[in-house]
Amino acid sequence: MELLVPLGRISDWQIADLSREVNCSMAFGQDNLLKMIDIQLLTTPLDTLGCISFVQSDDSGGIDVFIGTVRNATKGKPVLRLEFEAYEPMAVAEMRKIAEQAIQKFGVKRIAIHHRSGILEIGEAAVVIAVSAPHRAAAFDACRYCIDTLKETVPIWKKEIFEDGEVWVAAHP
Amino acid sequence: MELLVPLGRISDWQIADLSREVNCSMAFGQDNLLKMIDIQLLTTPLDTLGCISFVQSDDSGGIDVFIGTVRNATKGKPVLRLEFEAYEPMAVAEMRKIAEQAIQKFGVKRIAIHHRSGILEIGEAAVVIAVSAPHRAAAFDACRYCIDTLKETVPIWKKEIFEDGEVWVAAHP
Repeated sequence: MELLVPLGRISDWQIADLSREVNCSMAFGQDNLLKMIDIQLLTTPLDTLGCISFVQSDDSGGIDVFIGTVRNATKGKPVLRLEFEAYEPMAVAEMRKIAEQAIQKFGVKRIAIHHRSGILEIGEAAVVIAVSAPHRAAAFDACRYCIDTLKETVPIWKKEIFEDGEVWVAAHP
Repeated sequence: MELLVPLGRISDWQIADLSREVNCSMAFGQDNLLKMIDIQLLTTPLDTLGCISFVQSDDSGGIDVFIGTVRNATKGKPVLRLEFEAYEPMAVAEMRKIAEQAIQKFGVKRIAIHHRSGILEIGEAAVVIAVSAPHRAAAFDACRYCIDTLKETVPIWKKEIFEDGEVWVAAHP
């Protein structure tokens, strides 16, 4: 059984990229940010429609939603199921920071990021990111920014479980 | 009351861009394409979760969904509601062509494009596009390609209804 615990991810994560730090709460106010952002790390199936309802707003013309699902194979090898493990307080804080950066960078209206932990079967959603914006380009750009940044900075790991063993890998390669 | 019927859109549409024609049915087989693509033009509220369920497949790792919603203002002027009018047979054929092109260009697994016609209130979904792919980049690129191309080639028009009048404009500017 191949078993590689990716301890490197924590130290990568701890080397904070200070240039990306955004004091978003100063620009928008903490109360407004609470209404604009919904971050959840859950052991139960993700509610895609709930994420969409959260971001829907009358002053938005476009919503982009990304759903990361468990694929039945990786590099041609059949996968039975996945197990996600998160360092919860830091994962939630880091997802919130990404959402605040997306609001600042792209002028989006609302963002929901929900991530699963625990064992997931093939086809289940591991992550749902929903973003609303006045125009569609900002919604697409912000949603993609969120998932691309999430894989780099959020301390969540994925164990791929095969017929003949299992291996820990980056959660969103 | 300002009322501009954009007859120009039909002739634009009729000048087919033959270079974009893709004989997708030859590459994938007509039966397979029927399973991969779901195109609907509807007078009833769109079913976002139904679109997502249609595209979900065990060999996909990412789903991108775009939802175009009715915004409460355009260029700073409050909008009361919208009315979408489609030239139905051609709108459906053109949406199907866009989906086939996206499969060919981006290697995506499944695509659903549902579009409303008729009167829509603020916040309602005018269009839902869901795309699944083995990896997320293809899902994002294909979804964006679909909505960007839809606005250029599909014969659907939008009437913006204000307090003091109404105006026909391109459906997805």
